[in-house]
Amino acid sequence: MTALKKRVYKIIQPRKSQDLVSTVFDWLIVSLIAINVFVIVLDTFELPKTLSLILRIIDVTTVVIFTIEYTLRLWTADIIYKNKTPFKARLTYAFTFLMLIDLIAILPSYLRLVLYIDLDVLRIFRLLRIFWFFRIKREYIKSLSTIFDVFKKKALSLFFSIFIIFTLMVIASVLMYNAEKDAQPEVFKNALSGLWWSVITITTVGYGEIYPITAMGKVLGAFFSILSIGLIAIPTGIISAGFIERAREERMNAKGNKRFCPYCGKDVEE
Amino acid sequence: MTALKKRVYKIIQPRKSQDLVSTVFDWLIVSLIAINVFVIVLDTFELPKTLSLILRIIDVTTVVIFTIEYTLRLWTADIIYKNKTPFKARLTYAFTFLMLIDLIAILPSYLRLVLYIDLDVLRIFRLLRIFWFFRIKREYIKSLSTIFDVFKKKALSLFFSIFIIFTLMVIASVLMYNAEKDAQPEVFKNALSGLWWSVITITTVGYGEIYPITAMGKVLGAFFSILSIGLIAIPTGIISAGFIERAREERMNAKGNKRFCPYCGKDVEE
Amino acid sequence: MTALKKRVYKIIQPRKSQDLVSTVFDWLIVSLIAINVFVIVLDTFELPKTLSLILRIIDVTTVVIFTIEYTLRLWTADIIYKNKTPFKARLTYAFTFLMLIDLIAILPSYLRLVLYIDLDVLRIFRLLRIFWFFRIKREYIKSLSTIFDVFKKKALSLFFSIFIIFTLMVIASVLMYNAEKDAQPEVFKNALSGLWWSVITITTVGYGEIYPITAMGKVLGAFFSILSIGLIAIPTGIISAGFIERAREERMNAKGNKRFCPYCGKDVEE
Amino acid sequence: MTALKKRVYKIIQPRKSQDLVSTVFDWLIVSLIAINVFVIVLDTFELPKTLSLILRIIDVTTVVIFTIEYTLRLWTADIIYKNKTPFKARLTYAFTFLMLIDLIAILPSYLRLVLYIDLDVLRIFRLLRIFWFFRIKREYIKSLSTIFDVFKKKALSLFFSIFIIFTLMVIASVLMYNAEKDAQPEVFKNALSGLWWSVITITTVGYGEIYPITAMGKVLGAFFSILSIGLIAIPTGIISAGFIERAREERMNAKGNKRFCPYCGKDVEE
Repeated sequence: MTALKKRVYKIIQPRKSQDLVSTVFDWLIVSLIAINVFVIVLDTFELPKTLSLILRIIDVTTVVIFTIEYTLRLWTADIIYKNKTPFKARLTYAFTFLMLIDLIAILPSYLRLVLYIDLDVLRIFRLLRIFWFFRIKREYIKSLSTIFDVFKKKALSLFFSIFIIFTLMVIASVLMYNAEKDAQPEVFKNALSGLWWSVITITTVGYGEIYPITAMGKVLGAFFSILSIGLIAIPTGIISAGFIERAREERMNAKGNKRFCPYCGKDVEE
Repeated sequence: MTALKKRVYKIIQPRKSQDLVSTVFDWLIVSLIAINVFVIVLDTFELPKTLSLILRIIDVTTVVIFTIEYTLRLWTADIIYKNKTPFKARLTYAFTFLMLIDLIAILPSYLRLVLYIDLDVLRIFRLLRIFWFFRIKREYIKSLSTIFDVFKKKALSLFFSIFIIFTLMVIASVLMYNAEKDAQPEVFKNALSGLWWSVITITTVGYGEIYPITAMGKVLGAFFSILSIGLIAIPTGIISAGFIERAREERMNAKGNKRFCPYCGKDVEE
Repeated sequence: MTALKKRVYKIIQPRKSQDLVSTVFDWLIVSLIAINVFVIVLDTFELPKTLSLILRIIDVTTVVIFTIEYTLRLWTADIIYKNKTPFKARLTYAFTFLMLIDLIAILPSYLRLVLYIDLDVLRIFRLLRIFWFFRIKREYIKSLSTIFDVFKKKALSLFFSIFIIFTLMVIASVLMYNAEKDAQPEVFKNALSGLWWSVITITTVGYGEIYPITAMGKVLGAFFSILSIGLIAIPTGIISAGFIERAREERMNAKGNKRFCPYCGKDVEE
Repeated sequence: MTALKKRVYKIIQPRKSQDLVSTVFDWLIVSLIAINVFVIVLDTFELPKTLSLILRIIDVTTVVIFTIEYTLRLWTADIIYKNKTPFKARLTYAFTFLMLIDLIAILPSYLRLVLYIDLDVLRIFRLLRIFWFFRIKREYIKSLSTIFDVFKKKALSLFFSIFIIFTLMVIASVLMYNAEKDAQPEVFKNALSGLWWSVITITTVGYGEIYPITAMGKVLGAFFSILSIGLIAIPTGIISAGFIERAREERMNAKGNKRFCPYCGKDVEE
């Protein structure tokens, strides 16, 4: 059983196994994801009954395959966490990001069957699995890893910058609501209307279905629009700095820190 | 009295005191701010009289607590500025950014009571106090400090870049007003209409309720839209450079400037 | 024949030949491109028959000249690839980016003549030839090369960042379609309507002809609008880092890597 | 006469003269510019006759003062270019950027008087003079200079990036016109309508008065909107790199290039 388990583990787990079966398996899963997303999109169209039926069959088939895959991954989870009991290993593994996304992705179909709840829309999160496929292929791994690593490293700074932006959006909401509520009572109904206005304006999307018409409102609108230039620059600056720092680190690693003081022989890291 | 004062000072002041009472106090204040913002937002909805009354009580309570806190902070201000007389110390402290924001935040409730002026909308500025809370917690302090420090360091450059952008907005206003005033007299009523157009366009918000329809107007519109790409790039570039320089400084400080010329022993800073 | 071929080669090929005939030829081609684009634009207007006829003659003339030039370039292709047989050389050359663009550019006129297919709109791709002209002139070559080189180097990272952005757009499509389909059935007809909404919103273009009106839709809309700030920052950060790395490389090349360990004489590259 | 001329020169020319008269003169000119811009803006409103008259008098006064200043600057121009004849010096000086802007700024008033041509709108360019004032004050000079210097250094790269963006806009115009001309003949009248669409979309302003409604049009629209993310990143990346390089240069200059190889004493510039 253990040998079989180890074999299944090597195939199933998104690791750098390069042998044929693993690769075929990976491509199979990616194709299923693509087909499934296609089905989810087609489901939103008016379709003849035959086509609808075919889509249902495809969808059920993919969910079954995903469920089998999920179960097999849970089963082989104890190989990853050698120190834990099988049960704890599986529990830990079930709460990793990848496994949680897969759960969200296959659960809707069962919820519909058992509890008649329609959360089919959550099926679209299966699309996120596509990134795990790319992380396997060595040729792609560096570029995509770089993007994710920069994000992980700067996550706290990015969170704070978005927090600052959102705080200013809330302040802008109340101020604009107050300025426009008498002139446009149906448009600016309450502070949440103000919040919708400030989010859409400060992100510069600017649909045009809600905007100030009073003088004070326009002063506020102009102020926060100009402010948005600086606000949007913060995440951009953080991420740019992140990419540049990472390029530095890669240069350092490549060189093997060959910078040393020849006099005393001590290493001088850059 | 002094021992009591010192104790109050340690609790009240947003410093790095890590003992239990200070921490409880900080969390209490943040909760009050959150509750208060929630009240300000709910106030914009149509509510049954009972709920309105409850909100009024909550609002009054929080204002009383904020006032007590403000007074206590003023009282303990002379401990911060040891060199000044108590009065001067309190005056200086009252004009710091944090204290001024708190004043703007608690004043409306009193203005309404005493002078019947409705500036309740200014209560939303209490939300800015949330940043001082985050600056205390050591885990968050580095990320948030970095963002604020980069802003402080580049403040003058940012001011000038916004000044340049605004100057070009004013020029665009007059030119566009002149181009469109005959074709759209109700939309482009005067130079201020032109200014509203140019702010909303150059920040790329582009609501769509005011835009050029003449040939000359469209040429100007296209010109300033393309120009906005370069203009918006300036603050972004300044802030990106700021983050990268700060990352450098932190690297230098971490190393302790271990770069020296072994020959003459003199420090060579990077 | 070979001497003639070599002469033609020196003139025709967009190389750094600086003699008079080559330069005259380059400017001639650029003028023809400009004239041709002008003709393509004018073709979209209602014009008197005489002017239409003149434009037709100009267009035919330019196509004939471009065809002759294309043929001559194919003919002299075997000089570029000395190792290959003339036929293979020409085949290889015919599939380079420049030659393919030229093919797309002259094919429409022949398709119309022979097969009566109207793909005249593809004529506008001749405009891309203008970049090859700029790459010749030494004064411009560095600036324009820098931009193209940074793009080539970061191509894979950029592709992945756009891929990530598009994946999130697809997820947003299905979620928004699901949220708005009951409230706005004519606007959000199917998942493709949702995709149009998410592309136009996440790129912050925000025309305003499609937007959420339900509470859930607005929550989604606000979430993805704020997310777009971070998403758009990724390509910007990648490209900024690219320009800075290239500036470093140019500094290193200029110095000739004059950084060495005086102790052992070994090169220490920065 | 020469002593008087030299005195006038020191006052009039926007140089770093710090004496009282020069400073007073600078502030006087800036005040006049501000007043004049205020007059230009007020001129766009409907005003009672008395106010209109006052504005006319102010405007005439400022124009007279600007003309006197312009003439005095021309007069003292020969001190700047000591090598040239007075006439050549004045001619050269008259064609510098600052003097040309001043000419555009004062000419309209004379054109209206003499030729009855109404180019009053050009008066707004006087506002650009405000930058020369800031360049004088030492406290501001570094920040503002940095912005202008980065722009000057990267001018060619920026020009090319805008050129690339505009070329793609033209290609998008013709493609979108072709896709939408049958479905929206009144909106997409000709290729210039397409150009207006592509400029407003690729700059992400997106007013919403012109947009694709056909499937092909939406595919093109989505493509160019996503492309705009990368296009807008180019000038941003160039400018960010510019600011970072400049920060490096300032660090190098501050240190005096203290990096040398201690073994052979040869300078190793960073």
